[in-house]
Order: sequence, then structure tokens, then C-alpha cells
Amino acid sequence: MTIDELQSNIKFIVEIDKLKSVYRQTLLTDKSRYEGDAEHSWHLATMAFLLKDFANDPNVDILKVIKMVLIHDIVEIDAGDTYCYDVIGNKDKRVREEKAAKRIFNILPEKQAKEMLDLWEEFEEMQTSEAKFAASLDRLQPMLNNYYTEGISWNKHGIKVSKVIERNKHIKEGSPLLWDFALKLINDAVEKGYLQRD
Amino acid sequence: MTIDELQSNIKFIVEIDKLKSVYRQTLLTDKSRYEGDAEHSWHLATMAFLLKDFANDPNVDILKVIKMVLIHDIVEIDAGDTYCYDVIGNKDKRVREEKAAKRIFNILPEKQAKEMLDLWEEFEEMQTSEAKFAASLDRLQPMLNNYYTEGISWNKHGIKVSKVIERNKHIKEGSPLLWDFALKLINDAVEKGYLQRD
Ligand SMILES: [Ca+2]
Repeated sequence: MTIDELQSNIKFIVEIDKLKSVYRQTLLTDKSRYEGDAEHSWHLATMAFLLKDFANDPNVDILKVIKMVLIHDIVEIDAGDTYCYDVIGNKDKRVREEKAAKRIFNILPEKQAKEMLDLWEEFEEMQTSEAKFAASLDRLQPMLNNYYTEGISWNKHGIKVSKVIERNKHIKEGSPLLWDFALKLINDAVEKGYLQRD
Repeated sequence: MTIDELQSNIKFIVEIDKLKSVYRQTLLTDKSRYEGDAEHSWHLATMAFLLKDFANDPNVDILKVIKMVLIHDIVEIDAGDTYCYDVIGNKDKRVREEKAAKRIFNILPEKQAKEMLDLWEEFEEMQTSEAKFAASLDRLQPMLNNYYTEGISWNKHGIKVSKVIERNKHIKEGSPLLWDFALKLINDAVEKGYLQRD
């Protein structure tokens, strides 16, 4: 790597600091504030290496999964967090995010920019074992935070149980065992009144 | 992995959500608030895979570096963030952190708890290539945030240039090239008045 390439990397590293100020609809478990995208990504990366034995594909490349989840939300620096149950916001999400991906990843030297874009697209397309497992974690983590904050965010947005199941059933493709667990969590949330029946 | 082991993993995953509310002395580059430990760890993990070619050891195991930086601050859930220039706080830091490591990592099943403890101890001892590179990133990132917030945190604590050099010179062991860059950043910070001469 040359000094110019290092400068581009530093510029990118400084740029992505902004991800810490992109807030999600999920509360921290202590309810002190909304969760930022960067700490959400940290949580997923840590879960990836803890839960790798639960991946549907035993040969899943866990370093790739970790890279994917570390960078999967960087586009939201420009495109903002689109709440997963927001029908209108999700219509032009892809267009807004692709534009963002091009601007932000291209701060990096060409070869690294390509690696980042490829990783992000692979994550978005949810076809490979790595992308499927990454998506499972991306669904499971906010569900845990919703459960442990007694469903405040679900109830604020009027989200009922059928929507939570519809939105999160992809977990099964990455990990049937984590989907079994998620279903139990959903049932328990309904029992406890954190999540409303339809 | 058994269902019991999954439950222990989930318990740990929920426990470490608390790391998002452990605040450091570093400001976000947009100055909106202090940086949390979890998003700091995310930044280091992303830097690890971007900057791996700058590691002193070309055979550095980057997955191990990433794991280390993801978990290196988890002990601060109990022990709190000890400001790196706090002489008194740093005296009993090790004792407080070891106690925390035992409590928190032992939420996990035995084998995983051991992996976490080993990773954390390796990071703390700063002897292996992976630990040295991880330490370099852990020094460089707050320096970048201090620089891009015009040294607010340095000045608030009355930190002068000699202390910044003394504290950060370890960067050289993990990466001489990143240390060259850091020295230029320090000189520039002095020129611009962000950091005071002794
Ligand atoms: Ca997202």
C-alpha cells in the first residue's frame, strides 16, 4: 500500500465515523437512547463469531460474514436508516443506498472500494451462505433488543405479531436453529404483552 | 452446540448490549456526544481489515485481530472506561478488569469463555503480532477523532504533546508506517493549535 492509498483509507475511516450518529428504531436494552448503526454493526460482528456453529452451512466463511456485517449499514450515512416496517421508505431504499455505496466506498483505493461494494451487494442479495447468515443476525439482534425493552419500539409503531414473523422468517435460511429460538422469543413476547396479536 | 449453550450465548449477547452505554473521553467527529465503547470497537474492527497490509507482521492473523478488538473493551461494562492519561485510575485498572472479565466471559459456555479470556489476555499483554496490531489501531482511532474535533478532549484534560507521544508510541510495534502517519498528525495538530506544546 502506498502513502496515497493510506491517505484514502484514513479519509474513509474518518468518513465512517458518521455511522455512529445514524440512529435506528431500536432502543438500547437500558432504554437510555436509540441504538446507533455502528454499535449495531459491532453487535452483529460479535454475534457472528459466537454463533458461527449455528449457521446452516457448516463451511460458512466467518471472516467474510464479519466483514459484511461491519460494513452493511455504511450506506445509511447518506441514505438514512429505513425502518424495516416502513412501506413507503422501502420503495426507493435500494436506489438511495446504491448511490450512497458508490460515493462512500469510492473514497477508498479502487481495489478496496470494489471489495466493499462486492461485500455490500452480496449482503443485499442474500443468496450466499455468508449473506444468509449475516441476514439472520441482522434480524435476530433487534428482536432481542425489542424483547428486552418490553416491545416499546414494536408498540410505538403498531407492529403486530404477523408482521414480525413475516419480516424475520428469513432467519431460517441462515440458521434454522436460530429461527426456532426466534419463534419462541416471539411467542413469549406475545404471552408477556410486549407484542400484540393481530 | 446444544440448546443450553445457545441460551448462554443469548444471555451473553444481551449482557454486552451494556457496552453501548459505556462512554469514552473521545468525542464523535460531529461533536454530538461522547463515543461509546461498542461503536469504538466497531471502528477498530473495520480498520483492522482495511489496514491489514500495514501490519508489521505480513502474516498477521486478521480474523484474530478483529475478534480481539471486538471484545477488548467488554470488561469496561463492570470496570468502566479508565481514561488513558488518568494515573490513579490506571493503578487498579488491571485488578478491576480481571474481575470483570471473569464475570462477563463466564456467562458463555466453558470453551467459548476460555477463548474470550485468552483473546482478552493476549490483547492486554501486547506480545503477539495480532495484539500489537490491535493495540496500534486502538491508539490511532482516538487520535483521529481528537484531531478532527480540534483537540477538544486533549485540551479539556490539559494533555500536552509529550504525553500523546509517550502514550501512543506503541503504534510503532504494530505498524511503523501507521506510527509515521500518527507523528505527522501530531505535528499537524500542534501547528493548528489543537494540541499544546509542553
Ligand atoms: Ca439496515
